[in-house]
Amino acid sequence: MATPPKTSPASDRARHRPNKKEQGAATREKLLRATVEVIRVNGFAATSTTMIVEQLGVTRGALNHHFADKEELILAVGKLLLDDGIAQLGAGINAEAPVGEKLARYADSVLRLYLSGDMLVWIDILMTARRDRTSMRRMRDFFNEMDARSYDIWMRLFARDCPDKARLVAARDVLFNFAAGMAINRIFVKHDGYWRDLLAFLEQMLLDGLDRPAPTDWPRDRGWVDQFPSSRPC
Amino acid sequence: MATPPKTSPASDRARHRPNKKEQGAATREKLLRATVEVIRVNGFAATSTTMIVEQLGVTRGALNHHFADKEELILAVGKLLLDDGIAQLGAGINAEAPVGEKLARYADSVLRLYLSGDMLVWIDILMTARRDRTSMRRMRDFFNEMDARSYDIWMRLFARDCPDKARLVAARDVLFNFAAGMAINRIFVKHDGYWRDLLAFLEQMLLDGLDRPAPTDWPRDRGWVDQFPSSRPC
Repeated sequence: MATPPKTSPASDRARHRPNKKEQGAATREKLLRATVEVIRVNGFAATSTTMIVEQLGVTRGALNHHFADKEELILAVGKLLLDDGIAQLGAGINAEAPVGEKLARYADSVLRLYLSGDMLVWIDILMTARRDRTSMRRMRDFFNEMDARSYDIWMRLFARDCPDKARLVAARDVLFNFAAGMAINRIFVKHDGYWRDLLAFLEQMLLDGLDRPAPTDWPRDRGWVDQFPSSRPC
Repeated sequence: MATPPKTSPASDRARHRPNKKEQGAATREKLLRATVEVIRVNGFAATSTTMIVEQLGVTRGALNHHFADKEELILAVGKLLLDDGIAQLGAGINAEAPVGEKLARYADSVLRLYLSGDMLVWIDILMTARRDRTSMRRMRDFFNEMDARSYDIWMRLFARDCPDKARLVAARDVLFNFAAGMAINRIFVKHDGYWRDLLAFLEQMLLDGLDRPAPTDWPRDRGWVDQFPSSRPC
């Protein structure tokens, strides 16, 4: 094998032996995914760093090497869940496909994302964070980023199918609120076939909705995008 | 004032001096509402009976007189929230009114219910309960009862407007999952005008939906009612 050039292109990454920085990143991600699991099992409020260190089988020093304190660890967990989620949303959908096909595939990605245990971890962190002003501000930043990024994906896929932006935004917001409720209610109703059918029903309503003009009494330019300026596209 | 008869009719209740049993019931409800407040502020996982006793300013003996242990207290809190919620749902709506008017008023009652702090207390208890088999079984009973009672209200109001029961059930389930997501997402988006508008948008979709035949691929007689036999009406 030829000596790799000093700055190897992305496609060569898989071949070369991971350097210290890459090993560090891998360890960091492993710690984060294990932390998600600890929170999922024990609940966020009951999870201490001592518990994390014990269940991960690492030293506190090793954990601290990557995350200065619990706050930093939780922030990194939130970021990981966010990136994972956004990467799944609408992945591999061609914006030029027929709208019905796009919506079905998009709904499918929402289903996978919101029925994963990860989404309950996110809601769990959120429910606890809401009682603390600093945590709340940080979570708000996450929420804002999640909203902005998922908004961009939604618009990229569906803007061409509906000239009425207010209706397009409302349809997205209905879908995402439904999905959050689904994550909660699935604690009891574990039958995934039911959720698939119900989402398909909603999807049909959304499809019909996109196809019609917005009702005149729906206020334009109002919604989450109004609450979170960074997600406002224009 | 005349001496009240031994068994006073309901309409006289407001006039006569409360007896011991009634005083006990009033104290019990006061304790429960105060407990809801303690849970709302501190989070369910962080709430101990010691904390409840301290913040309520009662003796442990007084609390134990009404509730043998924390389990019994939480069950009573759940029952109170359930009864409160069901009493609000669709209250005062005439089943013979036009469907659009009924749906608007029903959505309004859902909005009030799910945007109240009580609904987050319920979700908080639920999120914690899901890690414990016994609590889970009890919460499941609550969930089942809530589902059955709200199903009965929904059918009483809307069965005459849609001959297709599968579609009627699906519309209800979409609405309630949306509402649960709204309770969660409102932690960040406190703008109630936004929620009112978004619910009005969904309401329009539901109204159009009830008016059309069900898509042939929506499986009939499947849904929550299938998971919870006691809520199955036929």
